Amino acid sequence: MIVWLNGALLPVDEACIAPSDRGFTLGDGLFETMRAEAGTVLRRDRHLARLRSGAAVLGIPVPLDDAGLAGALTAVLTANDLAQAPAAVLRLELTRGPAPGGLAPPAEPSPTLLVTTRAAPAAAPAPVRLVTARGTRRNEHSPLSRIKHLGYGDMILAHREASGSGADDAIVLNTAGHVAETTISNVFLEVDGAWVTPPVTDGALPGTRRAALLDAGVAAEATVTLAMLARARRAVLSNANGLRPVASIDGRCLSLEEVPAPWR
Amino acid sequence: MIVWLNGALLPVDEACIAPSDRGFTLGDGLFETMRAEAGTVLRRDRHLARLRSGAAVLGIPVPLDDAGLAGALTAVLTANDLAQAPAAVLRLELTRGPAPGGLAPPAEPSPTLLVTTRAAPAAAPAPVRLVTARGTRRNEHSPLSRIKHLGYGDMILAHREASGSGADDAIVLNTAGHVAETTISNVFLEVDGAWVTPPVTDGALPGTRRAALLDAGVAAEATVTLAMLARARRAVLSNANGLRPVASIDGRCLSLEEVPAPWR
Repeated sequence: MIVWLNGALLPVDEACIAPSDRGFTLGDGLFETMRAEAGTVLRRDRHLARLRSGAAVLGIPVPLDDAGLAGALTAVLTANDLAQAPAAVLRLELTRGPAPGGLAPPAEPSPTLLVTTRAAPAAAPAPVRLVTARGTRRNEHSPLSRIKHLGYGDMILAHREASGSGADDAIVLNTAGHVAETTISNVFLEVDGAWVTPPVTDGALPGTRRAALLDAGVAAEATVTLAMLARARRAVLSNANGLRPVASIDGRCLSLEEVPAPWR
Repeated sequence: MIVWLNGALLPVDEACIAPSDRGFTLGDGLFETMRAEAGTVLRRDRHLARLRSGAAVLGIPVPLDDAGLAGALTAVLTANDLAQAPAAVLRLELTRGPAPGGLAPPAEPSPTLLVTTRAAPAAAPAPVRLVTARGTRRNEHSPLSRIKHLGYGDMILAHREASGSGADDAIVLNTAGHVAETTISNVFLEVDGAWVTPPVTDGALPGTRRAALLDAGVAAEATVTLAMLARARRAVLSNANGLRPVASIDGRCLSLEEVPAPWR
């Protein structure tokens, strides 16, 4: 595998992150996960805009303009023979870079920018079984819940809880006890005949596909209580890599009737 | 500088973290910051116990027993000519190690263990000016608030807010609006004639020096409201590196009268 690291294409075994990189020492950075189809990065402009918005929240300078970032994405796809692949996943990570110890960021950071890729599975995803995570909560009071921050600890705990109970993914609640998202997806639910998805202020990451679906008018933003979750008839998960139907939530089976055309 | 990485002592420039290390990609790990005086690591057993407790929460195996970890600490002090230094700071970081993409942890992780050190300032710390961070909150509903997890994003945001207003550090509130800690320290406050410190259930990291101070009976655990913060007469910050007196909170000056002997 070839990675793009700070402007250079390198075999992954030769790519080296400094032990003092704040992405490694303090989770001080953010990332984007994107899907490319035959070399075209889906919703690329939304991803790059979200990256810049998140970097501004953290105060990390983005070292390239959008054309430069797009060039890095294309370069890493090409270097890995994925420029013509039906589907590939791209991951771009930006950190504050190497720094001395302590919490104070360096006055003039040298950010680290890493782009990696891998082929995406061709088959349509199987319906997923969800459980509601009981072990942790997502902090909707933090601006970090609204950017794609590296600190995925709560999601890792929730994923471990789901795996431990034989489920595929976990619904994560916010500190108020309302639905935020799953560990890797936004969640859309059909409740009382209408499709809803939690608002960003409830701890939903502003997903790029979520935004496109809201723009298409398939759902409205609404706080999703546990009572609403318990009477949802259908549910669909969305992330950059696509839509996934939900087979069950906490053991209760949902309708797998297909969602209509505007979702596609 | 010489670092200890997975059993090897290396010049820092030759130490390489893999771009796929989950500490770098997902903040999936934890750390300990310790103080050594003339080669003796203060409260070492408490630090190693907390490391193991946190690693168990995350499900990351600790690759060495306590004697092995202690040996790594000594080795890195010696290699950096700090074994006789009056004071040095040691930092030990444990991550889940390299992994393929996605959130699911590898079934058999190869954890990364890194130990670094630097000389600690010899002078007593100057009194610090604190502000209450308004931009983010600490998530006391997450088990991560009770371990020394890599995800320091909220603390970095709060530190930026403090620096931006000319303060030295920030008091971070929990989602209920009560005092949790500062970005790098536990906080002890003299309120209505008694010393108190927030309980771990309010989002205070279970600091090793905090535990020793509670064992010594200098303070009691109590929820600290904003009203209590506003009438505190004195405040002291504690972390592994020592105690720091507080000069002011949100511009209000506090008494700098020295704390009595049991604190020392």
